[in-house]
Amino acid sequence: MNKTSAGTFYGVGVGPGDPELLTLKALRIIQQCDLVTYLRSEHGHSMARDIASAAVSAATHADQKEYAIILPMCETREAVNTVYDEAARVIADHLDQAQDVVFLCQGDPFFFGSFAYLYDRLNDRYSIEIVPGVTSINASSALSGKPLSLLAENLAVISGRRSDEDILHTLSHFDNVAIMKPGRRRSELLQLIDQAGRTQDACYLEYVGQKNQKIIYDISVLDALPGPYFSLFLINRSRDYTPSSKKP
Amino acid sequence: MNKTSAGTFYGVGVGPGDPELLTLKALRIIQQCDLVTYLRSEHGHSMARDIASAAVSAATHADQKEYAIILPMCETREAVNTVYDEAARVIADHLDQAQDVVFLCQGDPFFFGSFAYLYDRLNDRYSIEIVPGVTSINASSALSGKPLSLLAENLAVISGRRSDEDILHTLSHFDNVAIMKPGRRRSELLQLIDQAGRTQDACYLEYVGQKNQKIIYDISVLDALPGPYFSLFLINRSRDYTPSSKKP
Repeated sequence: MNKTSAGTFYGVGVGPGDPELLTLKALRIIQQCDLVTYLRSEHGHSMARDIASAAVSAATHADQKEYAIILPMCETREAVNTVYDEAARVIADHLDQAQDVVFLCQGDPFFFGSFAYLYDRLNDRYSIEIVPGVTSINASSALSGKPLSLLAENLAVISGRRSDEDILHTLSHFDNVAIMKPGRRRSELLQLIDQAGRTQDACYLEYVGQKNQKIIYDISVLDALPGPYFSLFLINRSRDYTPSSKKP
Repeated sequence: MNKTSAGTFYGVGVGPGDPELLTLKALRIIQQCDLVTYLRSEHGHSMARDIASAAVSAATHADQKEYAIILPMCETREAVNTVYDEAARVIADHLDQAQDVVFLCQGDPFFFGSFAYLYDRLNDRYSIEIVPGVTSINASSALSGKPLSLLAENLAVISGRRSDEDILHTLSHFDNVAIMKPGRRRSELLQLIDQAGRTQDACYLEYVGQKNQKIIYDISVLDALPGPYFSLFLINRSRDYTPSSKKP
């Protein structure tokens, strides 16, 4: 690593939940850095830190430090900006002292994550390296036995927060669709999937790669209630690809 | 691993090219299996085998064997089916002898890959486990400094083989678009990206994660000629996210 002037800032994907889905590169960089940073809730919980726990414990850097960036519950744009401004200042201080800093990102740094806020604030002045990770949609596809895309098929990944019109349009134009973070909109999304005639193609997953992971293959049994933040719908062209071990 | 009856068939993503982007789980499974299989060209080349080379060399299984599935150059549907039928028979023979078999997949097994052909042929009879991997689009995003998606943005992944109409429609409806394997259609795709007014948003990547990897940030300088198979266009909502180390 470049220690001659400023340190390097690493944005490292730690995968969706299973610590074994860390890459060898993520493991090496986490172990070598001077400072390990990550987002943490006000309640003291950090998913990214949990996933990388064994990697951090096995640090090869003798004097490794940690820095939790605490995200307030009430996320107004302004409050979030203040948090990232301050985090960027702390990280820059370390880089200026020729220290290498790693920011742990659940999944992949540039796939629906928060890393871009720090990247945006530090990229002009510092050397940044990004280590891609396994995403929640790849893990969900592997777990459910539903291919994300084959041959000349297409795939759309859309936030559950998009308009009804956008979601309906996507469901009717794409072979395969992932709807990210349905959360509070789960009930409306169930209706939209039904309206697009794709209830049969859909499955629903929560907390993939974590101890409490759950797959619902028949979404018609899902309650029309809000779900947790870490959930998604996968809608695939109809094929019977349910893993044999999971067949009833 | 289940050795009591039949063995387990593992579809394992080995990432897009850099051997350090293997996951810890992929490494462990490759090292433990009785048989390692992968696709190989008639010329004797296997990208997946190359990426996993160090993992195979470090096998913990004392008597590990290899089996290359040779794909003919002239890929008629029928010829390809014959190859996969025969491969499934060989794999089934090993599973029946209570051996565990791993199929190495470049990138992720269910993301534009060939694993589904074997999955389809073996899933009814055998226990199959899929290990997701880092995809070429995540690696390309990390390398180019272009986020695949932020907050409520959407992302489409579309094959370069789709119709002009499909590609134009996708370019105009999605914030971020990856066009996979432009290959022979590179010249038409350059025109379509231009027609959609998104030349400024696009970058072009070849052989990501391999020694000969290449990024073209200004696609207007790209020759209107066919390109290699392992290439892609990334089209992102305009932001200046070019990594500082790569700025001119």
